Amino acid sequence: MDFNDVTAADVRRLGQICPERVSTGESVLDQHAQDESGHPPVRPEVVVWPTAAAEVCEVVGLAAERRIPVTAWGAGSSLEGNPIPVRNGIVVDFSQMDRLVELRPESFQADVEPGLSYKDLNARLRHEGLFFPPDPGAAATLGGMIANNASGVRTVRYRATKDNVLGLQVVLADGSLIHTGTCAHKSSSGYDLTRLLVGSEGTLGLVVGATLKLSALPAEASAAVVSFGTIQQVAAAVFQIMRGGLAPAAMELLDQATMGVVVPDAGLDLAVRPTAFLEFHSGSAAAVDESVAVAREICEAEGAVAFCSGLGAEARNRIWEARYAAYEALRREHPGWRPLILDTAVPLGAYTELVAFAAERMARTDLPGYLFGHAGDGNLHIVCFTPPGDDRAWQQIQDANADLVRRAIDLHGTATGEHGVGLGKRRFMDHEHGSSLAWMRRIKQAFDPLGILNPDKIL
Amino acid sequence: MDFNDVTAADVRRLGQICPERVSTGESVLDQHAQDESGHPPVRPEVVVWPTAAAEVCEVVGLAAERRIPVTAWGAGSSLEGNPIPVRNGIVVDFSQMDRLVELRPESFQADVEPGLSYKDLNARLRHEGLFFPPDPGAAATLGGMIANNASGVRTVRYRATKDNVLGLQVVLADGSLIHTGTCAHKSSSGYDLTRLLVGSEGTLGLVVGATLKLSALPAEASAAVVSFGTIQQVAAAVFQIMRGGLAPAAMELLDQATMGVVVPDAGLDLAVRPTAFLEFHSGSAAAVDESVAVAREICEAEGAVAFCSGLGAEARNRIWEARYAAYEALRREHPGWRPLILDTAVPLGAYTELVAFAAERMARTDLPGYLFGHAGDGNLHIVCFTPPGDDRAWQQIQDANADLVRRAIDLHGTATGEHGVGLGKRRFMDHEHGSSLAWMRRIKQAFDPLGILNPDKIL
Repeated sequence: MDFNDVTAADVRRLGQICPERVSTGESVLDQHAQDESGHPPVRPEVVVWPTAAAEVCEVVGLAAERRIPVTAWGAGSSLEGNPIPVRNGIVVDFSQMDRLVELRPESFQADVEPGLSYKDLNARLRHEGLFFPPDPGAAATLGGMIANNASGVRTVRYRATKDNVLGLQVVLADGSLIHTGTCAHKSSSGYDLTRLLVGSEGTLGLVVGATLKLSALPAEASAAVVSFGTIQQVAAAVFQIMRGGLAPAAMELLDQATMGVVVPDAGLDLAVRPTAFLEFHSGSAAAVDESVAVAREICEAEGAVAFCSGLGAEARNRIWEARYAAYEALRREHPGWRPLILDTAVPLGAYTELVAFAAERMARTDLPGYLFGHAGDGNLHIVCFTPPGDDRAWQQIQDANADLVRRAIDLHGTATGEHGVGLGKRRFMDHEHGSSLAWMRRIKQAFDPLGILNPDKIL
Repeated sequence: MDFNDVTAADVRRLGQICPERVSTGESVLDQHAQDESGHPPVRPEVVVWPTAAAEVCEVVGLAAERRIPVTAWGAGSSLEGNPIPVRNGIVVDFSQMDRLVELRPESFQADVEPGLSYKDLNARLRHEGLFFPPDPGAAATLGGMIANNASGVRTVRYRATKDNVLGLQVVLADGSLIHTGTCAHKSSSGYDLTRLLVGSEGTLGLVVGATLKLSALPAEASAAVVSFGTIQQVAAAVFQIMRGGLAPAAMELLDQATMGVVVPDAGLDLAVRPTAFLEFHSGSAAAVDESVAVAREICEAEGAVAFCSGLGAEARNRIWEARYAAYEALRREHPGWRPLILDTAVPLGAYTELVAFAAERMARTDLPGYLFGHAGDGNLHIVCFTPPGDDRAWQQIQDANADLVRRAIDLHGTATGEHGVGLGKRRFMDHEHGSSLAWMRRIKQAFDPLGILNPDKIL
């Protein structure tokens, strides 16, 4: 695709659409050039901050008329270069569209703008006894979570963002605004544009509003921290807990290296060993206690060396905060080093095999790697670091990443469980999707014939 | 769209693709002319019974070359005319593609062919402690359930078909075969073709295989039958149970007229009153008992006159069989009369309003109407009957249906909660989807430019 540069006249027109909310300042462009991944920064030519859907329509209409790329920006917390404006152009920063528009607790629903963070939303929902379950951990905005179909530690029970969105307001590539879905909790009415657009990473349209499905906060919750001798034992215990139908609300795996950073960083009083974090939710304390007791039996049968349960709400929160902060803690451990984050998911029955392969493959590099993941979903992450400017090390880690992603796909899994395709996973799309990739391209062509929406992503 | 008739040469070619599995016999054509709805029958010109995906590719390839309509056929149990071949052409009957191809209990997954019925699948899964939760009740095939995004009584907890399908094998309008999705339980990899195709009613492709997500059979289950004075009280109790976060596995509403047919038909020992059927699933008996106790308190506060719980497995099964058989029992009550089945869903907070409006609106007709529904999902059905040949009565009931569907849409609900658009709901698509309908048309155009796949449905 050929695109035009942003001209001074374009900037003036953008300033008419978003008065005093447009910038070409160097520091602003730098702030919108890179997400939290290790992909190289690329600056947009201009940034705008709309305050209403109608303004987004006008901005995209201008971009279509002038054939200029448009990329949406949430919190910049994504991990595969998803919002890096690699073809420059306009970045639409949604930080000034961050309202909770309407809360309907009686229907378990909230209408939100895309710039609202899920943490802020959940803080406001707490007194209603409700929450929006997907929890990627970062300072993510709901718009960004919708774009990437984000998930997190509670997805094993409450599913991903896609499963918790009922409808969208979306600005399409011609500048028109559509509403998708309804507020009914189920529907068989026509093609499911909502779920087509969730996870499309801003390549089919810009989300300017969403109707979210909320869940009741559990009456009872209980967490356990389980230490094992090896990471393979953790994976085996996870598998047996899922196979037993215990339906945990969270089930995380962390290797010894990760625990070695997370435990001191968060000041936790836990053993530095391969570990499982478990959580169970229920309407009754008896049910939660029973689940914990069964989980304990399973873990001990798989070789657990310590099982710490009965943690109060404060202790649970500290553990989850530490888990959420793991990536930042690991980055602080290697200041200035370039990170690469593996993100694959496989069927549950293949998880132990993937974990074993990953541990063995990483050991063949001489670089630091930290293995953890949302094990109950079959989702595995490894955070690796390479020294600044060390191209040989970077290549080494890229090769290991590629081997792991290909193995996950060959185990009938996916190249990305939750971080999206962005820039980093495009090269695996052929392997994963085969001939169906051509039909994704047809959809892109039907929705964005000029290719102006977040170009060079996914496809 | 202009289509060609099926010629004798076409029938010969179909016979080469599916040897001895092609028919133009009158009775065969009649059997494939009508589903369980009241929509008028239309016969195809020829029926084929493929036994493998490759044969379906060839059949669709021939149809594309000759510009002949192709419509998939499962059990013919749908309720909106979804598989009626209104433009004639070829019907592809999947009854000879009914294998359980592979069961992977360790990953909670099964690969199936489209002609397998969900009841047969569940009978074979039982000894593994697993089940496929969507349960439309009829003799539905999995292919038909996928086409319509079917749901049923357990959808309030386990969600609809769409949420329990991981991947598909689909023959597209050019005769090519694609695989969508993966076997991982979550993915953020590219556009979600699986969920676009589920619920597309055979208008974008023919499903020739699916990977299903299975659930663990609950360790403990308990049901309750609650009688009320009015249907509005039932709706209010349903709302309070959901709002209380009790997470029932089923929550059905039946009005007095429906109970008046269902109870004697199934020989149940229950009061003929407005009724709620409830079921709770859990890993522990204590948790189930607690849920039932809380539900009882709520129901009594809303005016329940009887609360019958502690039903054993046999009693529960009889109640659910009676509920599943309600439509057939109602048809037997009005032999030869033409049925119309309302199917709408609204947000939970609007359900009591919809039920009140429905009861009032039906009372303004002088025709028999039976109101029931998957209340926990906000899904309402009314089965109405008109005497044979009575066009005035049919118009009267169509008008009532249209008023109810429009009211549901205005309450931010949907024209169809689970039966699909088919023929009966097309006229409401503009009202429900507005400008997003044009983008559904673009998808149809991208996938089926000749319009040969199940023409004149949905759009």
